[in-house]
Amino acid sequence: YPAGDPMWSYFTAVAGQDGEVDAEELQRCLTQAGIHGTYTPFSLETCRIMIAMLDRDHTGKMGFNEFKELWAALSAWKQNFCTFDRDGSGSVEPHELNQAILSMGYRLNAPTLNSIVKRYSKSGRIFFDDYVACCVKLRALTDVFRRRDNMQQGMVNFIYDDFLQCTMAI
Amino acid sequence: YPAGDPMWSYFTAVAGQDGEVDAEELQRCLTQAGIHGTYTPFSLETCRIMIAMLDRDHTGKMGFNEFKELWAALSAWKQNFCTFDRDGSGSVEPHELNQAILSMGYRLNAPTLNSIVKRYSKSGRIFFDDYVACCVKLRALTDVFRRRDNMQQGMVNFIYDDFLQCTMAI
Ligand SMILES: [Ca+2]
Ligand SMILES: [Ca+2]
Ligand SMILES: [Ca+2]
Repeated sequence: YPAGDPMWSYFTAVAGQDGEVDAEELQRCLTQAGIHGTYTPFSLETCRIMIAMLDRDHTGKMGFNEFKELWAALSAWKQNFCTFDRDGSGSVEPHELNQAILSMGYRLNAPTLNSIVKRYSKSGRIFFDDYVACCVKLRALTDVFRRRDNMQQGMVNFIYDDFLQCTMAI
Repeated sequence: YPAGDPMWSYFTAVAGQDGEVDAEELQRCLTQAGIHGTYTPFSLETCRIMIAMLDRDHTGKMGFNEFKELWAALSAWKQNFCTFDRDGSGSVEPHELNQAILSMGYRLNAPTLNSIVKRYSKSGRIFFDDYVACCVKLRALTDVFRRRDNMQQGMVNFIYDDFLQCTMAI
């Protein structure tokens, strides 16, 4: 990688010998890179599901290519969040999370949207860390589903172990 | 309820008018009741999935009967955790989480167990809050699965919205 790539220097400083980061290292990496900007840095919990979203070999770690993929997703989500958080208070309204989810192209019915919005709210508002956690989970679970929905019927079969392996980590 | 029931007084002091608690109120309630003992009180994240585990009507809140059900589960999990945490350090070994899961009667294959243990570890150890989060998720996701596995074939069909509604909140 080009020595001048700032992402590579953030990553490699934390990753160490094995060239991969676990959830705690990822948290440090993202905090040092400052992608949260003026918002509160990501919680360990959110970093754990970021790893799970991209961790197809179930090692609990992330290499540089996945890190770049994550970075691109985070940048887009942050931009989206900022659009709604006009006053920069660090939180958005429930109906704005609703809008954000729909604008990302997810087609969910009202009860599903409602329960998601409730789950990621704190005192009736959605903070940046929870917003990103919601985006990560939505993307990861939709990926899990689509990968199994070969016929694109919107219906999927799970055996118990597969179901747990896909959902426990996310 | 009998005025002398200590659980009822903890609950009702926090629940207020509507007689239900949301995740933040549950956190306050459990902390005040001191069920964590010498361990760190439960994180908001763990309280959120506690609610989701028992929230069949998707209101994001919990009534007193569900609170009692939760309390019973927490007491059992705590006792189990203490058995493994002999030195009272507040954390257990990965292979002990493994054993704990199997001793609860879950039958999971090795890859599933492995990825679960990795997910709930912090610096190679499992702390009380993460241990309980793991137990809550395992029970909630297994409930979701069993409720749909009418023929007890170990295989379940999900449509996309149902899948997300079941898994996003947990
Ligand atoms: Ca990996
Ligand atoms: Ca705002
Ligand atoms: Ca409820």
